[in-house]
Amino acid sequence: MLKITTNPNLKMHFRDEDVAASFAKLLARKDLGFLNLPNDQESLAKSSALGSQISANYEHLVLVGIGGSSMGPRALAEISGSTKISFLDNVDSMETEAVIANLKNLSKTAWLFISKSGTTIEVLWTLELAEQIYRQHNTEFFPHTFYITEDTDNTLNNLAKKHQRPRLAIPLDVGGRFSVLSPVGLVIAQYLDRSPKLLLEGAREALQARELLITSVNQYLSSFERNEVITLFWFYSSRMRWFGCWLQQLWAESLGKKETIDGKTAPHFSSPMISIGTCDQHSILQQIMEGPKNKFVNIFRFLDVEKSKHKIKTTQFAETKLLENLNFGELIKAEAVATEMALQSTALSTTSFELIDHGDKSLGFLFMFYQLLVATIGEHTRINAFNQPSVALSKKLTLELLKKLKPKL
Amino acid sequence: MLKITTNPNLKMHFRDEDVAASFAKLLARKDLGFLNLPNDQESLAKSSALGSQISANYEHLVLVGIGGSSMGPRALAEISGSTKISFLDNVDSMETEAVIANLKNLSKTAWLFISKSGTTIEVLWTLELAEQIYRQHNTEFFPHTFYITEDTDNTLNNLAKKHQRPRLAIPLDVGGRFSVLSPVGLVIAQYLDRSPKLLLEGAREALQARELLITSVNQYLSSFERNEVITLFWFYSSRMRWFGCWLQQLWAESLGKKETIDGKTAPHFSSPMISIGTCDQHSILQQIMEGPKNKFVNIFRFLDVEKSKHKIKTTQFAETKLLENLNFGELIKAEAVATEMALQSTALSTTSFELIDHGDKSLGFLFMFYQLLVATIGEHTRINAFNQPSVALSKKLTLELLKKLKPKL
Repeated sequence: MLKITTNPNLKMHFRDEDVAASFAKLLARKDLGFLNLPNDQESLAKSSALGSQISANYEHLVLVGIGGSSMGPRALAEISGSTKISFLDNVDSMETEAVIANLKNLSKTAWLFISKSGTTIEVLWTLELAEQIYRQHNTEFFPHTFYITEDTDNTLNNLAKKHQRPRLAIPLDVGGRFSVLSPVGLVIAQYLDRSPKLLLEGAREALQARELLITSVNQYLSSFERNEVITLFWFYSSRMRWFGCWLQQLWAESLGKKETIDGKTAPHFSSPMISIGTCDQHSILQQIMEGPKNKFVNIFRFLDVEKSKHKIKTTQFAETKLLENLNFGELIKAEAVATEMALQSTALSTTSFELIDHGDKSLGFLFMFYQLLVATIGEHTRINAFNQPSVALSKKLTLELLKKLKPKL
Repeated sequence: MLKITTNPNLKMHFRDEDVAASFAKLLARKDLGFLNLPNDQESLAKSSALGSQISANYEHLVLVGIGGSSMGPRALAEISGSTKISFLDNVDSMETEAVIANLKNLSKTAWLFISKSGTTIEVLWTLELAEQIYRQHNTEFFPHTFYITEDTDNTLNNLAKKHQRPRLAIPLDVGGRFSVLSPVGLVIAQYLDRSPKLLLEGAREALQARELLITSVNQYLSSFERNEVITLFWFYSSRMRWFGCWLQQLWAESLGKKETIDGKTAPHFSSPMISIGTCDQHSILQQIMEGPKNKFVNIFRFLDVEKSKHKIKTTQFAETKLLENLNFGELIKAEAVATEMALQSTALSTTSFELIDHGDKSLGFLFMFYQLLVATIGEHTRINAFNQPSVALSKKLTLELLKKLKPKL
């Protein structure tokens, strides 16, 4: 499913046994719902049914959600090359109004609202706008709405009940950024004609991939010991940009903490950065090679992208002579391997991952692998990987500002 | 056009006179073609004509180019919300084959090949594939091709001549990442029904915005003095992701140099990172607030996004009560301002930029402003902002690897 090639020049700073112990502690925790999602057959059945219901009755879907309620679904849509979903996650008036104005048929458009807490202000504000525009078009809005939220006394859940609309629950013990294998991702996978079942199957394999995980956790912990301030996730695939954004959120919100659970100063983790394929060799590679050696570069190769049924037998150009008789995918492969060699030649820390394809099993594996990885790093370094106190501060400041500004607006 | 609000807590480490002298030196250089592009009427006329010709005769455009030949056009397409262009910049077999397979009408699709050197292997390899697939469909390929490259004895230019196809020149003294205001961006702007003329008008205004530029250069130089290793460009607009990628390349390739032009060790500049709007408050904000204080956060607000003709008079939710009677755009505005306040409250370095809109004049200004800014930083610190030696190394390694691997493939 996933193969890791560790760079032999990199020293591992921790003993595998100690990392393994942290992983075992993580798995033994009873408060982490994301560990149970791969085996949740009820969630799978309900999500598949809802995804099918939406795709059978609607031509298009607008997903309104933010952060963990949006990035996993966006990753799945991008990997599927689908245009069947519009995402509204930024209360950007130009974008939001353009998306609604471009809907071909209001009654054939489903609206899916996703918010773990059911109180996310951006989601509710977008709902208000959409409903208003539907009203102006004399079209009913709520009969086309669907909801995924905690099953508690919250705004979104109550709204779904009031209008007797289908709703699925994010379990109480599953955090937003750990929810991609809950109905949040599964409904979307089904709607996109992917396989939620295989997503979970891949996730179960990740739960079993103990050695791979321990090696990988040790690699990242060792990178932090080397004071590498940026972890660069470099995907040699054009369809992994949103997966990268999903990973960036998971990494940054889980690991960016100032205090340990014992109230001590937390270790400094890295900032996650995303790059894509050969195109970014013509962008940030120069700075990585000659700038400060403060980065850990992770190269992800995908075997399905490196294959092609198209072989080019004779080429008309001197520049591509070396590629003659090769299939179209061989160039990106050579570039990925050469880039890692070039980085290593300048003493940069690298590691590489190889995935067989973009299929659901591989994706389920990758989603779960990184959730386990980030959580194990948290366990090992005694930080709480499951809260996000500073996001709450920014929300509070927004409300205070609105209170202050309101009389002047 | 552009307003900068400097954070009063940040000390300027340089004298404005010295920065101004570097800017004057830059403007006096005769070897930098990008300085002349805003006044190049011939390039404007030819680009507008070619853009109109393509849009009048074709339903769709495939742009094949990489790095500086792709990111500026991608930025323009994203800002226009257009789906009239497909971009191939990654020799990713799945993406490339899917784009070609999904073309509705091969004879109504134009192909634009862009490469400054005319020898970019990814561009030529993609051309080989496209031509092969057209041949398999018994459709002529070359009559639908267009070219932008240096007017020299290079592969792409010679190919255009051989097939007697329209071609426009990137001036010899304009580097790839400084070419967005050459035919590279102007043809695309016209094809998208934007105004290349206003793009250049905005660029000319940037050339006149001396004080703004000097303040801004001083800000960034001072950030480097504070050892801030990441410059975060945070756009509160959903349509600025590719502009961010364009800026990332400009910044990373221009400033990431190990040596000064005197052969001394170059100062360490920052790695450029991109974030988008309120959605990324639910992603990397946590890590920025509580992680190491090694970042300079640049917040970009857009007044057109903060406006809306939709006012929501009464809201059904407690959470949005404060927003009642406001227009839809007020929330993103409050969040942008509150986020900057939150960052400042934890002693993070910030600055904010305010743009009136996403129009061509504003964009032309922004493109030119950052080209001038990066070039002035180079001038001031005596590095060569116009080469990219390490990208050449990675290209060389790819070819060597192909030579070595070829017999085994």
